[in-house]
Amino acid sequence: MDRSQIELLLNEVQSGRTEVGEALERLRDLPFEDLGFAKLDHHRSLRTGMPEVIFSAGKTVPQVAQIFARMAQAGGNVLATRASEEAFAAVHAVEPRAKFHPIARAITLTQTPAVAGKGIIGVVCAGTSDLPVAEEAAVTARIMGNEVELIADVGVAGIHRLLAQKESLQSARVLIVCAGMEGALPTVVGGLVNAPVLAVPTSVGYGASFGGVAALLGMLNTCSPNVSVVNIDNGFGAASIASLINHL
Amino acid sequence: MDRSQIELLLNEVQSGRTEVGEALERLRDLPFEDLGFAKLDHHRSLRTGMPEVIFSAGKTVPQVAQIFARMAQAGGNVLATRASEEAFAAVHAVEPRAKFHPIARAITLTQTPAVAGKGIIGVVCAGTSDLPVAEEAAVTARIMGNEVELIADVGVAGIHRLLAQKESLQSARVLIVCAGMEGALPTVVGGLVNAPVLAVPTSVGYGASFGGVAALLGMLNTCSPNVSVVNIDNGFGAASIASLINHL
Amino acid sequence: MDRSQIELLLNEVQSGRTEVGEALERLRDLPFEDLGFAKLDHHRSLRTGMPEVIFSAGKTVPQVAQIFARMAQAGGNVLATRASEEAFAAVHAVEPRAKFHPIARAITLTQTPAVAGKGIIGVVCAGTSDLPVAEEAAVTARIMGNEVELIADVGVAGIHRLLAQKESLQSARVLIVCAGMEGALPTVVGGLVNAPVLAVPTSVGYGASFGGVAALLGMLNTCSPNVSVVNIDNGFGAASIASLINHL
Amino acid sequence: MDRSQIELLLNEVQSGRTEVGEALERLRDLPFEDLGFAKLDHHRSLRTGMPEVIFSAGKTVPQVAQIFARMAQAGGNVLATRASEEAFAAVHAVEPRAKFHPIARAITLTQTPAVAGKGIIGVVCAGTSDLPVAEEAAVTARIMGNEVELIADVGVAGIHRLLAQKESLQSARVLIVCAGMEGALPTVVGGLVNAPVLAVPTSVGYGASFGGVAALLGMLNTCSPNVSVVNIDNGFGAASIASLINHL
Amino acid sequence: MDRSQIELLLNEVQSGRTEVGEALERLRDLPFEDLGFAKLDHHRSLRTGMPEVIFSAGKTVPQVAQIFARMAQAGGNVLATRASEEAFAAVHAVEPRAKFHPIARAITLTQTPAVAGKGIIGVVCAGTSDLPVAEEAAVTARIMGNEVELIADVGVAGIHRLLAQKESLQSARVLIVCAGMEGALPTVVGGLVNAPVLAVPTSVGYGASFGGVAALLGMLNTCSPNVSVVNIDNGFGAASIASLINHL
Amino acid sequence: MDRSQIELLLNEVQSGRTEVGEALERLRDLPFEDLGFAKLDHHRSLRTGMPEVIFSAGKTVPQVAQIFARMAQAGGNVLATRASEEAFAAVHAVEPRAKFHPIARAITLTQTPAVAGKGIIGVVCAGTSDLPVAEEAAVTARIMGNEVELIADVGVAGIHRLLAQKESLQSARVLIVCAGMEGALPTVVGGLVNAPVLAVPTSVGYGASFGGVAALLGMLNTCSPNVSVVNIDNGFGAASIASLINHL
Amino acid sequence: MDRSQIELLLNEVQSGRTEVGEALERLRDLPFEDLGFAKLDHHRSLRTGMPEVIFSAGKTVPQVAQIFARMAQAGGNVLATRASEEAFAAVHAVEPRAKFHPIARAITLTQTPAVAGKGIIGVVCAGTSDLPVAEEAAVTARIMGNEVELIADVGVAGIHRLLAQKESLQSARVLIVCAGMEGALPTVVGGLVNAPVLAVPTSVGYGASFGGVAALLGMLNTCSPNVSVVNIDNGFGAASIASLINHL
Amino acid sequence: MDRSQIELLLNEVQSGRTEVGEALERLRDLPFEDLGFAKLDHHRSLRTGMPEVIFSAGKTVPQVAQIFARMAQAGGNVLATRASEEAFAAVHAVEPRAKFHPIARAITLTQTPAVAGKGIIGVVCAGTSDLPVAEEAAVTARIMGNEVELIADVGVAGIHRLLAQKESLQSARVLIVCAGMEGALPTVVGGLVNAPVLAVPTSVGYGASFGGVAALLGMLNTCSPNVSVVNIDNGFGAASIASLINHL
Repeated sequence: MDRSQIELLLNEVQSGRTEVGEALERLRDLPFEDLGFAKLDHHRSLRTGMPEVIFSAGKTVPQVAQIFARMAQAGGNVLATRASEEAFAAVHAVEPRAKFHPIARAITLTQTPAVAGKGIIGVVCAGTSDLPVAEEAAVTARIMGNEVELIADVGVAGIHRLLAQKESLQSARVLIVCAGMEGALPTVVGGLVNAPVLAVPTSVGYGASFGGVAALLGMLNTCSPNVSVVNIDNGFGAASIASLINHL
Repeated sequence: MDRSQIELLLNEVQSGRTEVGEALERLRDLPFEDLGFAKLDHHRSLRTGMPEVIFSAGKTVPQVAQIFARMAQAGGNVLATRASEEAFAAVHAVEPRAKFHPIARAITLTQTPAVAGKGIIGVVCAGTSDLPVAEEAAVTARIMGNEVELIADVGVAGIHRLLAQKESLQSARVLIVCAGMEGALPTVVGGLVNAPVLAVPTSVGYGASFGGVAALLGMLNTCSPNVSVVNIDNGFGAASIASLINHL
Repeated sequence: MDRSQIELLLNEVQSGRTEVGEALERLRDLPFEDLGFAKLDHHRSLRTGMPEVIFSAGKTVPQVAQIFARMAQAGGNVLATRASEEAFAAVHAVEPRAKFHPIARAITLTQTPAVAGKGIIGVVCAGTSDLPVAEEAAVTARIMGNEVELIADVGVAGIHRLLAQKESLQSARVLIVCAGMEGALPTVVGGLVNAPVLAVPTSVGYGASFGGVAALLGMLNTCSPNVSVVNIDNGFGAASIASLINHL
Repeated sequence: MDRSQIELLLNEVQSGRTEVGEALERLRDLPFEDLGFAKLDHHRSLRTGMPEVIFSAGKTVPQVAQIFARMAQAGGNVLATRASEEAFAAVHAVEPRAKFHPIARAITLTQTPAVAGKGIIGVVCAGTSDLPVAEEAAVTARIMGNEVELIADVGVAGIHRLLAQKESLQSARVLIVCAGMEGALPTVVGGLVNAPVLAVPTSVGYGASFGGVAALLGMLNTCSPNVSVVNIDNGFGAASIASLINHL
Repeated sequence: MDRSQIELLLNEVQSGRTEVGEALERLRDLPFEDLGFAKLDHHRSLRTGMPEVIFSAGKTVPQVAQIFARMAQAGGNVLATRASEEAFAAVHAVEPRAKFHPIARAITLTQTPAVAGKGIIGVVCAGTSDLPVAEEAAVTARIMGNEVELIADVGVAGIHRLLAQKESLQSARVLIVCAGMEGALPTVVGGLVNAPVLAVPTSVGYGASFGGVAALLGMLNTCSPNVSVVNIDNGFGAASIASLINHL
Repeated sequence: MDRSQIELLLNEVQSGRTEVGEALERLRDLPFEDLGFAKLDHHRSLRTGMPEVIFSAGKTVPQVAQIFARMAQAGGNVLATRASEEAFAAVHAVEPRAKFHPIARAITLTQTPAVAGKGIIGVVCAGTSDLPVAEEAAVTARIMGNEVELIADVGVAGIHRLLAQKESLQSARVLIVCAGMEGALPTVVGGLVNAPVLAVPTSVGYGASFGGVAALLGMLNTCSPNVSVVNIDNGFGAASIASLINHL
Repeated sequence: MDRSQIELLLNEVQSGRTEVGEALERLRDLPFEDLGFAKLDHHRSLRTGMPEVIFSAGKTVPQVAQIFARMAQAGGNVLATRASEEAFAAVHAVEPRAKFHPIARAITLTQTPAVAGKGIIGVVCAGTSDLPVAEEAAVTARIMGNEVELIADVGVAGIHRLLAQKESLQSARVLIVCAGMEGALPTVVGGLVNAPVLAVPTSVGYGASFGGVAALLGMLNTCSPNVSVVNIDNGFGAASIASLINHL
Repeated sequence: MDRSQIELLLNEVQSGRTEVGEALERLRDLPFEDLGFAKLDHHRSLRTGMPEVIFSAGKTVPQVAQIFARMAQAGGNVLATRASEEAFAAVHAVEPRAKFHPIARAITLTQTPAVAGKGIIGVVCAGTSDLPVAEEAAVTARIMGNEVELIADVGVAGIHRLLAQKESLQSARVLIVCAGMEGALPTVVGGLVNAPVLAVPTSVGYGASFGGVAALLGMLNTCSPNVSVVNIDNGFGAASIASLINHL
C-alpha cells in the first residue's frame, strides 16, 4: 500500500519514466498518513470489527445522525456515546438497524463481527447511580468483541456483598471498576484480584464530592498496585483500554 | 461557687450591708465565666481526671516546659501533643514524673485517675506511616480514662487482614480510624460495625494525596452512615470526641 | 443462625451423612453474608425500627415510588431523603400512609415503633436558609426513635440569641449543628456544651462560600475538641450518627 | 506648588519671556508626579508623622539596614515589618535609636510625633499563636499615632472569655481582629460592636487550614455587616486602614 | 432599661419584697439579650433610621413580601437586596410606598430620615457589567443616610478615564470600588486617594475568572495599604461598612 | 490635534486674548484623554479600520443592537462577539449591512478597509468542538485586516494529521492554536514552527477538564519557548494580539 | 494448603478425633488469610519471582534495612523504592548482594528468576528531569521479569525526535510514558501505537505545574483511547500494572 | 543537506547504482529529523546567534558545567538560567569567558553576534522583589540580539510613577511586564501602549498570593486586548517570544 506507492515511484525513477527532480517533489508532498498510521487505523476498523466512535456530547442531533450514517456506510461497526433519545430517533431514521442502550446512553450498529477478546471483562460498580457509566463501559467492551460480566451494587460500605462476588471478580481477565463518592471500590477490588483494574471515577455524589474529584483523588492514591485511572465518567475510555488488554 | 458568690452579694443587699448601686456595679463587673462555663471546665478537670492539653506545635521548648509545669502544679493530668524530644527533655527537667510517647509525639502526666469510660475505644490504622496519628489518638484516649485497642496495618487493599479483625472491631463501643492515601478505611470499617466511627485523614501519601486532602475528601464522601470526620492528622480531636461518647 | 448452619453441616459430617469433599464444597460456596453482617442489618431493621433509607436524588420518580413500596412491604419503617413533591405524589399513590415533610424534602412511613434513644438530640441552625438541612436531620432523628429539639436562627453574628438558648443546648445528649456561610456555629456551640457535636456545613451562601466549602473548612478547623464533621448538606448522616450515640 | 509651576510658566508666556513652542515642550515634559500624588505623600510623611515602611521579607539584611538608614535621614518615622533579629542588629548598628519588637518582628524609629488618632484601636486575637500578627498590627497602629488596646486569648470556642471583654471591645473606635483555624472571631466580635472591624486571617493551623485559607474564607463569608478582610497575616495592612479610619 | 430591670430587682431584694433565692432564680433566667446587644440594635434602627435588611436570594416571593410588610409596620426603613421584579410586585401589593431599583435589584422603603453621614461615599466600578453590584452599594449607602457619587466605566485598561475622575475620587470620605475580571481597580484607586477603600470583587468575567475568584485574589493581594475586601458581589456589605465609617 | 489645542491656547495667552487665570482653568479642565491616549485610539479606529468591539455576553439584546448601531454611525468597522441569533436579528433590523457568523457567534460590519497585515495568521484547532473559539479568532483577525488560514481537526492524538499540515503551519507569520481537553496542541505546533504562537485553552471537555483549566495549565507549562497564553475561550483576545504582531 | 487445612479438620471431625464444638471454634478462629488471598500472594512471590516491595519514603534507615533483610531471608526477590544512598549503605551492610540504582533511587535483590513477560515494556520520558521516575519504572519492570526499552528525551515540543523512535514504540507490548510540565507525551505516544499506555505524571516543573497537577490533568483529559493514569511520580505503580499486562 | 541526501539517493537509483529495494530500506531508516526540523534549529543557532539554553534548576552543579562546556565548544552562544553562584563557579572553571548575572541568576557566553532585533524590548516590573524575573528576561532578550530598556519600581498603587514612564513604554516595539501580588501592571501598561505585551506573573507575595497564582489569574483576566501570559516566574519564556516578535 503506502510502501508500494513509494516502491512504484522508485520503479518509475529506475526506469527513467520519472525524473529525479519530479520524484523529489512528489516524495515531499506525500502526506504523512501515507507513511503509516491513519489509514492503517481505518483498515483495522474494517478488518477487526473495532467500531468507529462518535462522542455525541456537544454535537447537534442532526450532526450525530449524519456522522453515524456516513460511518455506517463505510461498512464497519459504529458506536455513539453520550447520546440522547432524540439523537437516537434521528439516527434510527437514517439507519434503522441502529440499537439504543438507554442506561448507557449509547447507540450501536454492528455490521462486522469483532475479533473476540481472550477472556471476560468484569465491569463492577458501587451503586445504581453509577450504572450509566458502567453500562457505557459494558456496551463499549461488547461491541469491541469482549464478553462482559456486570457486577452492580457492591459498595465498600457493605463489604460482604462484594466478597460474595469474589469468584466472579477473580475469573475476569481485566476489570473495570466504576465508583463515585469516596471512590474506594477499585482499591478493594484490586486487592482481591491479580488482574489489571481500570478505575473510573463517576460524578455521582454531592457536596464535597466536587463532581467526581473526591473519587478521582481516591483512585489516584490507591494502595493496590494493579489500579490505573481514567477521566471522570469515562466508561468508554476504560473499556477501550480493557479491550486492548483483553486482545493481547 | 459562682452561684454562691452571687448569693453572698444578694445576702449583703438584703441585709443592707451593700447598697443597690454598689451591688449593681459589682454584678456588672462579675466576669462572665463566673456565670458558668470556664470554671466548671477547670473543676471538671480535677474532678474527672480530664487532662489539660498543650498543643506544642508553634510553641518554643521553654514555653512548653513552663506551661506543662504550671498545669502540673494545678494537680490535674496533663497532655502535650505534637511534642519533640527536645520539648520532652525540658519538661522532664522540671517535672520528672512526665512520660514521653515517642511515636505519638506526646508527653503525659497522670496525677488523678480519670473517670473510666464504659467500653473499649478501637483505634484502627492502615499502614505504619499512619501510626503517629493513631498513637496520638490512643495516648489521648487512655489519659482520658478509656481502654484502647490498637489495630494496625489493616489497609483496604488487603481486605482479608481487616476482616480477620472483625470481632475486635465489633467489640469496640466507639472507633477511631486513621488513614492516608485514598482514605477508604473508615468507610469499610463503618460497614462492618454498628458503632460510631471517627475518621481521621492523615497526611501520609505523595503526589495527588495533597497532604491528606484526598483522604479527607474520601472520608467526607463516605457511604457508611456512622462515620464523621475531623481535621487532617487530628488524632487528639478524634480521641476527645470518642472519649466523650464512651463516657455517655 | 449462620453459626448453626455451619454447626448442622459439621454434625452431618460427624454422622457420616455428608462426605468431607462435599462439605468442603458447601463451605466454600457459603455466601459471605451468611457469616454475619448483612442479614443482621436486615433483621435489626425489623427488630429495632431503624428505617430503610432511599437517597432520592438522581433517581426517577417511578424508581423512588417502586423502592418505597417494596421497602414498605417488608414491614419496617421507611425514609426517603431529597424527595421532590412529585416523588411524594407517586409514593402516596402506592402507599397512602406515607407522610411528606416539605421543608426537609423527606418522605416517611412509620410501621414499627423504633427503640427510643436515651436523651434529647438538639438540632441547631444559624439562618432560615439552613432549615432544609436541619429539618432533614430532625426528621431522620425522629424516625430513628429520638426526641428532637430544633433551635433555629441563632447565628454567631448575634451571639446573645445563641446564649439565650444555653440551657436547651446543655440539656441535649448529642447536638447537630448546621451552618453555611462562615460555618462558625458548631465551634461556638461546642464551647458551650460538654456533649458530642455533629457539624453539618450547608451550601447556603454566595461568592467565596463556594457551595459550602468555606463552612466545611471552618468546621474542620474547629478549636472545640468535641466537634466532628459530615459532608455538605448531609443532615441525614449527622442524624444517623447522633442517633447511634443517643442509643449507646 | 505644581499649580504654581504651571502658573509661572503661563506668566512667562504672557510676558513674552518664553516662546509658545518652548512652553509646549516644558508642559509635555512636566513629570506626572508634579501634578499631584507622590510628593504630597512624601510631604505628608514629614508633616503628619506617618512612617515610611519597609517590607523586609525577601530583602537581604544589608538592604534592610541601608534603606532604613536612608529613610531615617529623611527625618520621618520609619517602620520595618517582617524583620529578623539579624536585620535589627544591622539596623541598630547604623541607627542606634531604632527599637526592636521581637514578637511583632518589627523595627521602629520615631523622630516626629504622629498626629493622634481620635479613639482607641482595639486589636483582638484568638490564641497565642496569632500574637505575631496582632502585635504587628499594634506596633503599626501605635507608630501611626493611635492608642491601642490589645485583647488576646479570646477564641470563640470559649465564648465567655470574649464576652468578658465586651466593654473593652465596645469602647474601641475601630477593631482589628486576627484569627487562624476557623477564623470565626471577627464575625462574633462584629456582632458585639457597632464599629468597623478589620479581619486578619492568620496562617496559624494545620491540615485543612491550608495556611490560612480556611480562616480567610470564613471571614469573607461573615454574617456581620461591619467586617472587611485583608490578606493572610497582613497585620500591617489592617492597622494602616484602621489608623486611616481613626484619623477621620 | 435592662439595667433598670436589674436595678428594680435589687430594690425589691433590698426592700425585702423579693427573697434572695427567688432573685437568684430570676437573675439566672434573665435572657442574655436583656444584658445588652439585640434590643439596642432594634432601638437603634428606629432612632437612627438604619434600615432592617432582607437578603431575598433563597427566599420565596411570598416570604419576601411578608417579611417586608412586617418590618414596614415596625416603623423603620426597610431594604431588600437581591430582589426579583416578581418579589417587588408582591411587596408593592402589600406596601405601595416601596420603591424598586431594577439595576441594583433592591427594594427600599424610607419612613424615617436616617442620620446623615459626614462626607461623600464614592462608588466606583470598572465596566457596565459591574453596575448591579455598584448600584446595590449605592442604594444601600443612600438609605443609610449617605450622599453617594457613582463613577462608572473607569477600568484600569484605560487609565486616563480613571485619572480624569481624580478630583471626584479625592473628594470622597470613603470609597467603594467594584471590579470583576482582574480586579485591579481598587488598588489603583487606593493609590490615588488617602481615604479607606472597600473593595468588592464581582462575578463578572469568564474562563479563569472563576466567578470572581481572580478579582478577589487580586484585591486581597493589593499593594495599596488602604484597601480591605468583602465577599464577591457583596455591594451591600461594602456599603454598610462605608456608612459606618462615614458616620464616625 | 490635542497638541494643537494646547498650542492654540498658548497662542491666545501670548497674544493677550486669554488671561493666565482663565488659561489655567481651561488647562485644568482639559480631560486627560486630550493629552494622548483615548482619542488617538478613536481616531485610529477610523484611520486603520480597527473595529470597535462589543462583548455581547451579559448584555441584553436591545443593548447590543443599540450599541452596534451607534458604533456603526461613527463610520468605523464593528465587531460583536459572543452574540446570539436573537442579538443578530435585532442588530440586523437597525443595521441591514451587518453580517452574522453563526459558528463564531460574531456579528461584523465592515465600512472601512482595514490596514492589511504583513503575513498570514494561522488559526489551528484540535476538534470540531473547538471550532467556535477558532472561528471567533478567525473572524476577529479578518476584520482587523489579516489573511487567515484555518486548520481544523488536527489533534495531537493523531499526530500525522498535524504533520501533514506542516507547510501551512510554517508559512504563517503568527499562529493561534485553540485546544481543550489536555491542551497539548500549542506545544506541538510551537515545536514545528519558528513563529509566535498564541495559545487559547477552550472549555471543551468533561470531568477533570474543569471547564478548560486542564488545557490552560497544560499551555502555561509548555516546553516550547514561543508559546504564550490567553484566557479560556478568548479567541478574540488571541486574534487581537496576533493582528498587532502581524502589523509590526 | 489452606484448603487442605480445612480438609484435615473435616477429616478429623469425620473420624471422630475432633468434636463438632471444637471444630466450630477452630473454624471461627481460622484467620481470613487462610481462606485465600494473602498467603497466595506470599507463595506467588516465591513461585513467580515477583518481588516483595518496600516503599522507603517515611521510613528510617534502620527500618528499611531491617525489613529488607527479613524479606531477603524469605528467599524471594526484594525491591526498595524511594531509597536514599544512606538506606542502601545500611541495606548493603546486612545484605551484601543488594544492588543500588542511584537514578531510580531503588535497591534490588534478585534471588529467584522471575517468570518472563511476553513482550517488551517501553518506558518513555520527555526530559532528563523525568529520568528518576522512568528509571524507577524500568527497574521495577525488570525485576518483575520484563524486558525493558528505555527511550528518553523525546518531548512533544520537538516532535521529530519522538517520531524517530516510532518503530521502537510500536514494537512494545505495553508502554509507560512519564512526563512533567504539560504532560502531553502519553497522548501523542498513545496516538502512535496500538498498545496500552500507562501515563505517569511527574512533579517536574515550576509555577503553574503545581508539583505535577498540570501534567496529571493533561493525562486524565487525553484524547487517546488507550491511555490510563497513575499517581504523580508513581513509576513503581505503572510498572507493576505494565508487568501484569505483559504476563497476560 | 537533508534534501540533497534524498537527491543523492534518487540519483543513485536513476543511475542503477542502487536497487529499488535497497533504496526503499534506506528511505525508511532515514531519521525524521533529516526531513526538516531539528537540524535546522541547530544550524540556526550558529547562523543567527540564538543561544543554546540550559534550565539549571534540578540539575547538579557538575551537570550544568559539563553541558555548558559542550555547548560552548559547538561555537554558538550559551545561556544558563536559574543558575546558582556555585554553578557559575564550576562553569567558569571550564569556560573562563562565561559571565554571571547575579540578580538574573543567569550565566551567558557570547561567541557569535546575534541577529539584531528591529526595535526596543521594554522590560517593566513593579517592585524590587520582581527584579530577578525581570533581569532574567532582560539578559535573555539581550543575548538574543535585542536592545532592552528596563523600567523598575512602577507598581500600580502609585500610578503616577508608571505614567511618568509613558514615553519609554510607548517607544518599545514589544513589552515584557513582570508583577507579583495582584498582577495588575500588565493590564495598565497594555492600556498605555499599542504594542504586544508579554505578562509574567511572579511568585512574589504572601498569603493569598499562593506563589503567584493570584497574579497569574489577574493577568489571564486582563481587559487589555494586547496582553498574553506565560508561566509564573518565566522571564526566559517571555523574552524568547518577545525576541521572536522583535525579529519579525
